[in-house]
Amino acid sequence: MKLIHANWNFPTAIWFGTDRIHDLPLACQQLGIKKPLFVTDEGLVKLDIVENTINILRQGGIDFTIYSNVQGNPTEANVLGGVAHYNKNQHDGVIAFGGGSAIDAAKTIAFMSGQSRSLWDFEDVGDNWTHADLEGIAPIIAIPTTAGTGSEVGRASVILDEKLHTKKIIFHPKMLPTLVISDPGLTIGLPANITAWTGIDAMVHAIEAYCAPSYHPMAEGIAIEAIRIIAKYLPLAFSDGTDIIARGQMLVAASMGATAFQKGLGSIHSVAHQLGAIYNKQHGLLNAILLPYALKQNESVIKDKMMYLSNVLELPNKGTDTIIKYILELRAALKIPHTLQEIGIDEENAQEIGEMAFKDPSTPTNARPVDALDLENLFRAAVSGDLNRFQV
Amino acid sequence: MKLIHANWNFPTAIWFGTDRIHDLPLACQQLGIKKPLFVTDEGLVKLDIVENTINILRQGGIDFTIYSNVQGNPTEANVLGGVAHYNKNQHDGVIAFGGGSAIDAAKTIAFMSGQSRSLWDFEDVGDNWTHADLEGIAPIIAIPTTAGTGSEVGRASVILDEKLHTKKIIFHPKMLPTLVISDPGLTIGLPANITAWTGIDAMVHAIEAYCAPSYHPMAEGIAIEAIRIIAKYLPLAFSDGTDIIARGQMLVAASMGATAFQKGLGSIHSVAHQLGAIYNKQHGLLNAILLPYALKQNESVIKDKMMYLSNVLELPNKGTDTIIKYILELRAALKIPHTLQEIGIDEENAQEIGEMAFKDPSTPTNARPVDALDLENLFRAAVSGDLNRFQV
Repeated sequence: MKLIHANWNFPTAIWFGTDRIHDLPLACQQLGIKKPLFVTDEGLVKLDIVENTINILRQGGIDFTIYSNVQGNPTEANVLGGVAHYNKNQHDGVIAFGGGSAIDAAKTIAFMSGQSRSLWDFEDVGDNWTHADLEGIAPIIAIPTTAGTGSEVGRASVILDEKLHTKKIIFHPKMLPTLVISDPGLTIGLPANITAWTGIDAMVHAIEAYCAPSYHPMAEGIAIEAIRIIAKYLPLAFSDGTDIIARGQMLVAASMGATAFQKGLGSIHSVAHQLGAIYNKQHGLLNAILLPYALKQNESVIKDKMMYLSNVLELPNKGTDTIIKYILELRAALKIPHTLQEIGIDEENAQEIGEMAFKDPSTPTNARPVDALDLENLFRAAVSGDLNRFQV
Repeated sequence: MKLIHANWNFPTAIWFGTDRIHDLPLACQQLGIKKPLFVTDEGLVKLDIVENTINILRQGGIDFTIYSNVQGNPTEANVLGGVAHYNKNQHDGVIAFGGGSAIDAAKTIAFMSGQSRSLWDFEDVGDNWTHADLEGIAPIIAIPTTAGTGSEVGRASVILDEKLHTKKIIFHPKMLPTLVISDPGLTIGLPANITAWTGIDAMVHAIEAYCAPSYHPMAEGIAIEAIRIIAKYLPLAFSDGTDIIARGQMLVAASMGATAFQKGLGSIHSVAHQLGAIYNKQHGLLNAILLPYALKQNESVIKDKMMYLSNVLELPNKGTDTIIKYILELRAALKIPHTLQEIGIDEENAQEIGEMAFKDPSTPTNARPVDALDLENLFRAAVSGDLNRFQV
């Protein structure tokens, strides 16, 4: 296939294609943003892709400043620092440039730039989001540099509450970026391990969304197609990071995974959010390790879906065990470990993790109802690598 | 499966479920519409579903008037009459209630209610739509009563230019309804033939969108899932019109078909638009008859997609001929004729129809490039029933 430039409009406007980053000044103009705050993270800010993007902004005559005090698993302090920077410099919009951490932080900065309430008042609980001041939310242009999180098409961010050692979801419909520039060239330099972890993250989004029991056939269609695309192109992007077709397909599939999970996520995210907060591990890596165990734990209710997915992936056999076998092989090919133990996580906090995971907003949409003990068992299985833990 | 109530938000907010029609007053309140114009068509206005809906509005204390001077294949006069009615009664929003004709007319009335230019100035050509006065477009609540057109999630309407005997597409992004109430109960009374024609219309949307060469993986995922749902549930809705699960699935699949065709349509629509204008036949019926001939004509470029679709539909064989055979069987089961001849259309205007179809906005996104002669040949094949016309 040829790599094509295309624009589309759901869930948000997406400008897709190589070198589309050059349209960034045009994007600012179209959105009426005269002085954007460019938000990225502390690692990316040193790289060429940021330098190049900044030059494009300069050449386009756009007045901007940079805020890069954003760490992986971004914190309240990262957000509040950005809000202070935004207001001091009288910005009128945000450019969110980076992976999930930078984009989540940037979206939250845009959201909080004009609010009088404090950040945690907008945790995604009940109707908290309705208390936001709509006029106080800045427009956002999102530019993903990893293909995984899909935060560029999402209406939420995950921010770390350092006091409680827990990740909290901040939600508002207007946190959905107005425009996404989806340029696969920006992901070419991504190291193989990050390619693998973020790519599997996208697949987990799609699989958990597909398996969620809620009714959203559009999301299901998008999820299934995302899984098919990732299965085909993630191994290619991993083995040759310069494969621009594979990079483009992965970037789109990541947006699709996140679009699909409007339908709901599940136990993998419930547990991964806690592990990310406690052990500061990469979110996609945690999801990747947890994935087969969660499929096994959910087996009784996802049989039909796993049959159909086997069909979509044109696997030689059909069913949950076939999908799990496929995932194990994919994970091995991507050099992702089979157990949490291998990345230094033991069962020490298992009970607490189960209890915290149970309170995670992803839990109620898990394929089958789970309690804190189920989530503790999921975690224990993934620590020790015991896929047979859930056999009846 | 159980029929579930659900709300979702792309491409537009959808309130899905049985008896959701009772949420219509709430929908008006949420959108700040105090005095809606209720637009439906001249046939529907006599039926109980309109009477019931009007009672719901009355009981909800909503002040409204009714406009029902809308015919199948709605005309400029239908639209302009509605605009005059809207402005005379000082409405502040439109409720679009009915099948494709009523919803298309209603959307166009809402759009034209505050424009100073004339209707045909907004034909979907070039950047015509950018000349609209944004403040002059009224908010729209769409309530489909057929499962086919998907106009409720579309940003365009098809209006008949009676002087030129041609259908024209009127387009503006803000013609997308703000909210859709998708209540399968409203489609229970639909006669079997209309169920079949509108249902196949939805399938043609999904198939042409899937086959369009443009790049829009989200639309493809939605299209494939729509085809799968329609294949499963259209025969059920046809054989038992009171099957509320099948009715609900068809209603959703119709919205999905129309969401997907943001990616593009093709030669079936190019020809059907002309035949609808000249012979005043039902749009879905025309699409249904044309479908297998167009697949045959496009065969050289859609092989991989037809292979995958055979897989998705779990057909015993794979490939374009398998899909065509499947479509012929489905069509026969739905009592849809195989030729245009059977519905009283002969080859008399073939050349003119080919030339007009070539100018249709659906033509450039056909799976393979077609010229006027190709479209004339497609039409001739469908008149006579000659599926082998396109054999090499």
